[in-house]
Amino acid sequence: MSTRTETDSMGAIEVPADRYWGAQTQRSLHHFPIGVDRFRWQRPVIRALGILKKAAAAANAELGELSPELATLIERASDEVIDGRLDDHFPLVVFQTGSGTQSNMNANEVIANRAIELAGGLPGSKKPVHPNDHVNRGQSSNDTFPTAMHIAVVEQLHDHLFPALAELRGVLAAKEERFRDIVTTGRTHLQDATPITLGQEFSGWIAQLDFGTEAVRGTLPGLCDLAIGGTAVGTGLNAHPRFGDLAAAKMAALTGHPFRSAPNKFFALSAHDALVQTSAALRTLAGGLMKLANDVRWLASGPRCGIGELIIPENEPGSSIMPGKVNPTQCEALTMVCVQVFGNDAAVAFAGSQGNFQLNVYKPVMVHNVLESIRLLGDAVLAFSEHCAAGIEADEARIAEHLSNNLMLVTAMTGHIGYDAAAKIAKTAHHQGITLRQAALDSGLVTAEEYDQWMVPLRMTRPGG
Amino acid sequence: MSTRTETDSMGAIEVPADRYWGAQTQRSLHHFPIGVDRFRWQRPVIRALGILKKAAAAANAELGELSPELATLIERASDEVIDGRLDDHFPLVVFQTGSGTQSNMNANEVIANRAIELAGGLPGSKKPVHPNDHVNRGQSSNDTFPTAMHIAVVEQLHDHLFPALAELRGVLAAKEERFRDIVTTGRTHLQDATPITLGQEFSGWIAQLDFGTEAVRGTLPGLCDLAIGGTAVGTGLNAHPRFGDLAAAKMAALTGHPFRSAPNKFFALSAHDALVQTSAALRTLAGGLMKLANDVRWLASGPRCGIGELIIPENEPGSSIMPGKVNPTQCEALTMVCVQVFGNDAAVAFAGSQGNFQLNVYKPVMVHNVLESIRLLGDAVLAFSEHCAAGIEADEARIAEHLSNNLMLVTAMTGHIGYDAAAKIAKTAHHQGITLRQAALDSGLVTAEEYDQWMVPLRMTRPGG
Amino acid sequence: MSTRTETDSMGAIEVPADRYWGAQTQRSLHHFPIGVDRFRWQRPVIRALGILKKAAAAANAELGELSPELATLIERASDEVIDGRLDDHFPLVVFQTGSGTQSNMNANEVIANRAIELAGGLPGSKKPVHPNDHVNRGQSSNDTFPTAMHIAVVEQLHDHLFPALAELRGVLAAKEERFRDIVTTGRTHLQDATPITLGQEFSGWIAQLDFGTEAVRGTLPGLCDLAIGGTAVGTGLNAHPRFGDLAAAKMAALTGHPFRSAPNKFFALSAHDALVQTSAALRTLAGGLMKLANDVRWLASGPRCGIGELIIPENEPGSSIMPGKVNPTQCEALTMVCVQVFGNDAAVAFAGSQGNFQLNVYKPVMVHNVLESIRLLGDAVLAFSEHCAAGIEADEARIAEHLSNNLMLVTAMTGHIGYDAAAKIAKTAHHQGITLRQAALDSGLVTAEEYDQWMVPLRMTRPGG
Amino acid sequence: MSTRTETDSMGAIEVPADRYWGAQTQRSLHHFPIGVDRFRWQRPVIRALGILKKAAAAANAELGELSPELATLIERASDEVIDGRLDDHFPLVVFQTGSGTQSNMNANEVIANRAIELAGGLPGSKKPVHPNDHVNRGQSSNDTFPTAMHIAVVEQLHDHLFPALAELRGVLAAKEERFRDIVTTGRTHLQDATPITLGQEFSGWIAQLDFGTEAVRGTLPGLCDLAIGGTAVGTGLNAHPRFGDLAAAKMAALTGHPFRSAPNKFFALSAHDALVQTSAALRTLAGGLMKLANDVRWLASGPRCGIGELIIPENEPGSSIMPGKVNPTQCEALTMVCVQVFGNDAAVAFAGSQGNFQLNVYKPVMVHNVLESIRLLGDAVLAFSEHCAAGIEADEARIAEHLSNNLMLVTAMTGHIGYDAAAKIAKTAHHQGITLRQAALDSGLVTAEEYDQWMVPLRMTRPGG
Repeated sequence: MSTRTETDSMGAIEVPADRYWGAQTQRSLHHFPIGVDRFRWQRPVIRALGILKKAAAAANAELGELSPELATLIERASDEVIDGRLDDHFPLVVFQTGSGTQSNMNANEVIANRAIELAGGLPGSKKPVHPNDHVNRGQSSNDTFPTAMHIAVVEQLHDHLFPALAELRGVLAAKEERFRDIVTTGRTHLQDATPITLGQEFSGWIAQLDFGTEAVRGTLPGLCDLAIGGTAVGTGLNAHPRFGDLAAAKMAALTGHPFRSAPNKFFALSAHDALVQTSAALRTLAGGLMKLANDVRWLASGPRCGIGELIIPENEPGSSIMPGKVNPTQCEALTMVCVQVFGNDAAVAFAGSQGNFQLNVYKPVMVHNVLESIRLLGDAVLAFSEHCAAGIEADEARIAEHLSNNLMLVTAMTGHIGYDAAAKIAKTAHHQGITLRQAALDSGLVTAEEYDQWMVPLRMTRPGG
Repeated sequence: MSTRTETDSMGAIEVPADRYWGAQTQRSLHHFPIGVDRFRWQRPVIRALGILKKAAAAANAELGELSPELATLIERASDEVIDGRLDDHFPLVVFQTGSGTQSNMNANEVIANRAIELAGGLPGSKKPVHPNDHVNRGQSSNDTFPTAMHIAVVEQLHDHLFPALAELRGVLAAKEERFRDIVTTGRTHLQDATPITLGQEFSGWIAQLDFGTEAVRGTLPGLCDLAIGGTAVGTGLNAHPRFGDLAAAKMAALTGHPFRSAPNKFFALSAHDALVQTSAALRTLAGGLMKLANDVRWLASGPRCGIGELIIPENEPGSSIMPGKVNPTQCEALTMVCVQVFGNDAAVAFAGSQGNFQLNVYKPVMVHNVLESIRLLGDAVLAFSEHCAAGIEADEARIAEHLSNNLMLVTAMTGHIGYDAAAKIAKTAHHQGITLRQAALDSGLVTAEEYDQWMVPLRMTRPGG
Repeated sequence: MSTRTETDSMGAIEVPADRYWGAQTQRSLHHFPIGVDRFRWQRPVIRALGILKKAAAAANAELGELSPELATLIERASDEVIDGRLDDHFPLVVFQTGSGTQSNMNANEVIANRAIELAGGLPGSKKPVHPNDHVNRGQSSNDTFPTAMHIAVVEQLHDHLFPALAELRGVLAAKEERFRDIVTTGRTHLQDATPITLGQEFSGWIAQLDFGTEAVRGTLPGLCDLAIGGTAVGTGLNAHPRFGDLAAAKMAALTGHPFRSAPNKFFALSAHDALVQTSAALRTLAGGLMKLANDVRWLASGPRCGIGELIIPENEPGSSIMPGKVNPTQCEALTMVCVQVFGNDAAVAFAGSQGNFQLNVYKPVMVHNVLESIRLLGDAVLAFSEHCAAGIEADEARIAEHLSNNLMLVTAMTGHIGYDAAAKIAKTAHHQGITLRQAALDSGLVTAEEYDQWMVPLRMTRPGG
Repeated sequence: MSTRTETDSMGAIEVPADRYWGAQTQRSLHHFPIGVDRFRWQRPVIRALGILKKAAAAANAELGELSPELATLIERASDEVIDGRLDDHFPLVVFQTGSGTQSNMNANEVIANRAIELAGGLPGSKKPVHPNDHVNRGQSSNDTFPTAMHIAVVEQLHDHLFPALAELRGVLAAKEERFRDIVTTGRTHLQDATPITLGQEFSGWIAQLDFGTEAVRGTLPGLCDLAIGGTAVGTGLNAHPRFGDLAAAKMAALTGHPFRSAPNKFFALSAHDALVQTSAALRTLAGGLMKLANDVRWLASGPRCGIGELIIPENEPGSSIMPGKVNPTQCEALTMVCVQVFGNDAAVAFAGSQGNFQLNVYKPVMVHNVLESIRLLGDAVLAFSEHCAAGIEADEARIAEHLSNNLMLVTAMTGHIGYDAAAKIAKTAHHQGITLRQAALDSGLVTAEEYDQWMVPLRMTRPGG
């Protein structure tokens, strides 16, 4: 392999000639061979680093901290990072220094060398663009990496998760409308309960989905507060006093999201509670999706020895041994994603509690888990929406059969004959295996006319019904 | 023990003559001897049940569903529940039916029997007040218990947690002000970093405390949505159509909090995501308190072989074997509470994901954990505030000694001589064990005048410094 | 309140005259008003402290470190602690100093004052028995408290949890035997699958219960390693070189459990991984119990619109609004306990990771959670065993109806006609709503004789069947 | 892209012509585009599927269930799966059907088509080798996938984790030996405590590492129980009665690990508690590594304003802004891995609790997390061992300075002058800022000769010292 010599404050080291990275990236590759197959940073973080470096260069130029020529070179190189053209030059993994320093330096080195190249210079020469003095100007890993973390998460929420949730919501809302008049068996404690419409059942799922979505959205303001401007410990040493605000404004302009420099930079470096809150809201959302997926698969259980009130699409053979079996696999994939999100969240919250003094050194593992949760939830929600929810049908015959057997219709009698008498009728029906109507008439407390007048399932699905 | 016969739909059972509870409470005592020493419901839940039953009776009366006489009797008995006069009549534990039915019935039974007594009737006779037909009128455990859960949590947040957090915030803010001009050593990765004022360090803790507090406050709107009005499955069967709204309005009036009947009752019965969000926010808060308590005890570590920059109160002998030892015990109690809150939250989120169809049957364990977290955080924050934070002093001599030794002051030179040259100076000082000034002058890159002009720690604590 | 003056190295303080505790206990009461209603130490820890102090006194006497007279006084007072006669003198809570120092001193003070009283001396005089110099002789909180933790946990496992698990196992085994020949519908992915006997279904639950029980038992050796002998930092300073071994032997003799002094005391003070393992095994057990309880309630779901193959005892009215409803409340209580155990375990593992240098200062919160998990699991398992499992009956008619409808019996044909052909038959039956037999005969691939010969459900429940 | 037509019980579908997979794999690719960048199955699971299919074919041949010719073809194709030559033909991800059916079918299809090719047949023709009837003979996904899960985990533990742990243990043991006689400051509650040797400090870490390692090893027996032989629901339907035992024996022979067919297959399919236990033990191990890494970085904190008693290797520049800064980055990477393991474990335990009836449908997510934890722990332990632990040096001057200042040496006086007098001396020294010796002599209770005779730090590191 052809190499080139790069240097840093520790000395010289060989790097591959066809890569823009420099000495510190190379050292990290050597020292952190941890999970290299699966834990390299992906698009969202690399892109965010590009956005950040472009905005920083522009801000420094505007503040007179960087010459327009150098700034333009850095911005051009950063654009290539943003676009994904230089992804192969970001080889580092999550499990590195806890401040993300090595990935910040990876960005500094790649942008510096690419900018040098654009200027016709020699990669590794640090002339005319120095990775620390120019690309990292007015910055520290301690404020840039958490800034990139927030940018990456905000973009992924908007670009990936929210559209997926909106898609599922639309599908469910159409079903709610369509199933509005199907009266079915309510179930509490897994036991037959008073009637409900299938549309109402869907409305509960939608309300829960909305709650989870709003919970995640509610964490955006915290995510839009960026650490930029704090430099090494939060004081802003070595940055122009207006740098943080201006750089954040430029990041906002580049992304369309209302980023600003955080009011208290000491907090912004030493803790990532906004990310913890996002993770927690993703967990709440996952809890809601788990309930939805479980309800769907239980209602579709059977086909003949379960509840069987819903019919879900048959997407693939269900079993390698049982011919003709169809399983609720989309529900399973989604609930597996949900438990993964629970696990990821546990890691994030634990990491979030472990800051010391002016820095929390669990930054990479925190953003990794939040981004993974967003990716998986978005992917799984889309798949579930398209391959399961959209195809849900009601088995109306089965629903009607269950409803007609449901002893808990008795509840509608309590206003007329009282709880205790009604309980006796329901128990008689249950233990003798007769219909509720029969038991009611047998009791002598209800006439046939009264029974038929009182016992209208559809009316029971409305307040006062 | 003298007893009285009570009945329910399962038949007759003996209860202690001096207790107001009825048959269902007695059955629960028999069937659920689980953690009886520690898991009986405490004041917040009992009080909330009282508020709920009073409001329900008043609403039913206003809607013509209950006679004014019966309503008044129920309200008077409910007032005694609210006041705590009947706490001895609430013997049930958390681990019972998952809908809280038995505690709802406990409230119905106690209020009915006490109301009967007020009316001059015979406890157990259900006349003139029936626990189900009157006290529970228009209600189901499925909507009342989650309603009581929310009331209890909202009240405890306002009455216990928020005042404690405000107390600690005030103490920290006073210290921030007082320590505003003490320049000290910043620390990142546990390593010496650029200077910071002690006031800035406190400001970071305050910002984190504020974030956690706001995170908890942000969950109040969700908590103020009550399940009341949904009855058994969310449809409101057997309740007057206006009952939910009116009863919630009365609960708001009784408590001063903006409660309302939830827009979607199916969601309100089958999931408790608002509580999951509250629990998560308490976890975020706990994560922040953990960081604060850890910072304090590390900064106070020593007294002679640690960092030793802060002095904390000596409240008690620290060791049963080492004479004269003083330990950061308030920090320890607080961080133990924080890990408990993390554990409680894990239980809440798990439970929250396990709903089925129209009901989540983990209600009691969810509210139990949230209330425990609130109680412990409030108590521990108050103790920490009073017995530790309020007495924190700065060891200014130690701080000055550390600051003067801090090699990372070199960062202020990078604007003048560049990162690489500065790195060499710092490394020389470190490896030769000499001062930074000496190493700088030795390098030939910096004159004594320049050194003294550039190297002003206080200035380094400000942006552009 | 009448008081007495007690002193410690911080000076004098008033304590209630009718309590044996001394100055340090009193200071703790003042400084740690955290969760006082629910978090006072209970019997298991108090008893363990008594055992420890008795054994320590006896060992010191045998080694010549304590006069026989003093030792006898201490042992007599310790016996009263062991018996529970002095529980009212242990007022401290979990959330105190993280080493449990204050509870160790509480024991030292109570035993010293009671011993002084037995000797006719003046409580508070420290003569002839000094809490530190005599009762705590050769000990530090850092080794005594974790020793007491292990003793308490080992005793509670043996005295409470294991008997409860054995009880449930016996009940399930009797059912397995009784239901041995009932062929029922197997279910995978919640979908109908090939047949299984109800006895086999119970055998799976028993195997899982056995696995969880053995997992917990497997942690006993770690728990039997005691920190005693390590004193303040693990070196054993101030203890006789043979003290740890001898004291542990005496604890073993007092309890009947194979306690020994841990081979490495530095580990025994600075980490409590044995407890973390116990907690994890309790979580595994809880996961198994959750599966069992969920299976039972789903199999009992209905009664008419669910699976309904099992009948569980009707212990109490299930609903405050739906008359005659019976709910699987024992399952609910048990699963709520299981999620609590998951939460407790999260706290324990988190706490276990937070040791520093020679001490982990999360001792009290760790043992508290493990003991709570043991208590709740034992209680809930007993209640579930007695009030649910013991009364489980099979609804054989329902089981037979389901089995006869089960399309997955088709699996038995695959050996004869191949997977693909069998799949076609099953799908035809499903989509046309006809019996499997009909679809098989319609296919022309199977004769009626072959069908009846191949399709014997009972045989399908055996390998090669 | 050139394609070929494949069929399954749902019909025909096009697959890439240059891939061996069949219809069901292709359907899964379409329906589960979830986390495709990072969640494809990796070597350990693919290899395990190959081992399983080879062993199954051999067992079926021996039992007369498969012709020798077909068996040989399947075994040859399986060998290529084992060797990794066919990894590109395994494109499926973790988040699919919860039984792993699609990956089992992926293996069946790839092996069938490759075997067909070896026999000169036409891929997709299912002749002479059928993926279900031959490759999957006597098997179901429900027993094969959990079998592959256990094989993969056992192999990874032995091949990756245990060697890494042994490496670190060796490095620490060498340091323990080397630092045996360096007396240093013990620390409890982060406060100065009685002396300890640096070797003893290392011995505590080693003991904890050993405990964690043994905890993981202790789960091997559970992992060696395989589900194979249970087929669809645990009964073994469609498998030869001796198939499970024989196939497991062949897997044992192929791997060198003592695999056997599990005694109770119903448990083996419906729960994966052995994996939950492994995950929990990995968490315990992670907790211990976290303590080790934290201790190292705190002891190396500074270099001038922290504890600074250990010197760790300088592997890379620590800061992008602070020149010359060196950070404990290996500790940070390791502790980030530890929190990830905690999170992964939370997912595993949650998933493990969610089985229903005869199947747990969280299989893929469970094994994924366990394998990820093993991979990350092994990688990070190796990196930490080589790049940090191996280079740890003691700063003996700093250690000696701290030790001489340590007031807790006073503990050695308590045997001579009692706890209370000793406490007074220590407090006087602390508050007056004088040496312990001075304070002791000033007290009049200790002569200079006594002081020098009693106060020998090295002796204090031994029991009775």
